[in-house]
Amino acid sequence: MSHSIIAYADGTLTVLDQTLLPGQARQIALRDLDTVVEAIRALRVRGAPLIGITAGYGVCVALREARDLAAARSAAPHVFQALRGSRPTAVNLFWALDRMEHALARVSGGAWFAELEAEARAIHEDTRRQDAAMAAQGEPLLAAGARVITHCNTGPLATGAGGTALGVLIAAHAALGGLHVFVDETRPRWQGASLTTWELAQSGVPHTLIADNAAAALMAAGGIHSVWVGADRIAANGDTANKIGTYGLAVAARHHGVPFYVVAPTSTIDLTLDTGAGIPIEERDGAEVSAPRGLAIAPAGTAVWNPAFDVTPAALIRAIVTERGVHAGPAFDLRRDLGA
Amino acid sequence: MSHSIIAYADGTLTVLDQTLLPGQARQIALRDLDTVVEAIRALRVRGAPLIGITAGYGVCVALREARDLAAARSAAPHVFQALRGSRPTAVNLFWALDRMEHALARVSGGAWFAELEAEARAIHEDTRRQDAAMAAQGEPLLAAGARVITHCNTGPLATGAGGTALGVLIAAHAALGGLHVFVDETRPRWQGASLTTWELAQSGVPHTLIADNAAAALMAAGGIHSVWVGADRIAANGDTANKIGTYGLAVAARHHGVPFYVVAPTSTIDLTLDTGAGIPIEERDGAEVSAPRGLAIAPAGTAVWNPAFDVTPAALIRAIVTERGVHAGPAFDLRRDLGA
Repeated sequence: MSHSIIAYADGTLTVLDQTLLPGQARQIALRDLDTVVEAIRALRVRGAPLIGITAGYGVCVALREARDLAAARSAAPHVFQALRGSRPTAVNLFWALDRMEHALARVSGGAWFAELEAEARAIHEDTRRQDAAMAAQGEPLLAAGARVITHCNTGPLATGAGGTALGVLIAAHAALGGLHVFVDETRPRWQGASLTTWELAQSGVPHTLIADNAAAALMAAGGIHSVWVGADRIAANGDTANKIGTYGLAVAARHHGVPFYVVAPTSTIDLTLDTGAGIPIEERDGAEVSAPRGLAIAPAGTAVWNPAFDVTPAALIRAIVTERGVHAGPAFDLRRDLGA
Repeated sequence: MSHSIIAYADGTLTVLDQTLLPGQARQIALRDLDTVVEAIRALRVRGAPLIGITAGYGVCVALREARDLAAARSAAPHVFQALRGSRPTAVNLFWALDRMEHALARVSGGAWFAELEAEARAIHEDTRRQDAAMAAQGEPLLAAGARVITHCNTGPLATGAGGTALGVLIAAHAALGGLHVFVDETRPRWQGASLTTWELAQSGVPHTLIADNAAAALMAAGGIHSVWVGADRIAANGDTANKIGTYGLAVAARHHGVPFYVVAPTSTIDLTLDTGAGIPIEERDGAEVSAPRGLAIAPAGTAVWNPAFDVTPAALIRAIVTERGVHAGPAFDLRRDLGA
């Protein structure tokens, strides 16, 4: 499926416009910096790893018309600043852009642009390998027939490859059989309802959609094996920023003794942060809550608090699965684990 | 405000069609049994006390064309059965219908219909007195400037009078000043976003709408004084069935040490039930989740689990406020408290 989610050729980036799913699977061509920034900001591409891949290719799109390497380096500060500003919470964005910035400093000669493109492709290929490794690491934590809950979208649509948390579940279903995935709708933007259900249907994994606020009752009803989520940013102590609602789900899981797993590539881990207290939380337009997709559900002018993310303390997380292994909680030391 | 929410005159019941709020405040006339049942089933009137009032007047609407008392009593079994089947979880419905059934057995002579109407009006008047008493009982649990969270709709629109939980908050704001109410949107039907915000705006109480799944993050951010919800049915031990999402909110409140209060008239307490395990949970059409108000957010055919209610165990409830007093938890004995 991933080839249709993001593809780059000849200075043009083609992405699936995820805001149109599940109704339409339309691809859009991004041919300049502004459209790349807009696509990230408007969540046409979303999910931390895919944002990183998009930013990598986006640098190529933005610099493809530079006369020469000197002109490219002269234009670069504006390009990197614009891309870094498109989603302030996504550490993969910064990580990918740092790689591209180093590459731009390193390349030389007439093949400089091809070398820059190679770096962007390497970012994408790294994600494919990482996703496959996470799926392999996470599978032993599941059992045939497991009933699990997931939040937001962490599948191929989120990474441009196999996926993170949902990648583990899809792979485990293929290997073990019989999984049943309960999918939080994931207000306010419904990534669970619109994207995760679509991916699970495409992958043939049995699933049931629930309102976010039904997850606790589902756990109380019994038979839930575990909860699986992705991450937008993880601090050195394991505190995890992820889509709003993740924290409440973790609190409910703890209350019911249900293991709570985070799956994310190590590029999501920000070792410059000791704890989650340092993670900036993006607040988004209140209309996402009060008028979702233009449907006015509240009186005009109603004040809204709409944080895009929340922070789940490490103490609520049983394990963080990365491409490097299963990091067991609740006392994480990711600096030690990653040899930093 | 309550006069416009429900009114009965000359065999016709006029109710505000709450499914059209907050966009339109349209009143509809209910002139026969079928339209009364449809209005309850389709949530045009909702909230346990208002459903009880509606059912009381509904009996009058259904029997107004009976030739005489004998004909009315002959038609009654069908009328009561239809009304009892309209919302299986609402104990107020059964309570109000029991009152009307006893009244029908008691009335006699040429004024039998006027006496039946008097009983329906008494049910409504009892609610007005109850709501005022609950507001008086609950106010001491609040402080000037309190920041609180509420779920679903428990104001005048829910009771046809002052309201239960929201009635306490509106009265406390008037008496103490400075309350700020955070309103859960309350998926899947958005009663919080559509109704509670509307009522708070009409009452001049400062408020902020949040996605249901942001409540835990709001508590973690600090400064939340308490959580206030209503109830659809309360067992003798204090276990409380209320709108889906209430339980998760209670779990989050417990995790953060935030007091969790239930406000409901004693008519909501079902002393025939020892615990919440005996409360039947209505499962509603999955399209409420997957296609809210006709907006398809999930692929066609997606399976949905859509329970209308969940049960919050008494252990998570600090106190239940009724018109009779503040019943302190978590070890409730409502049979003792109510002298049953």
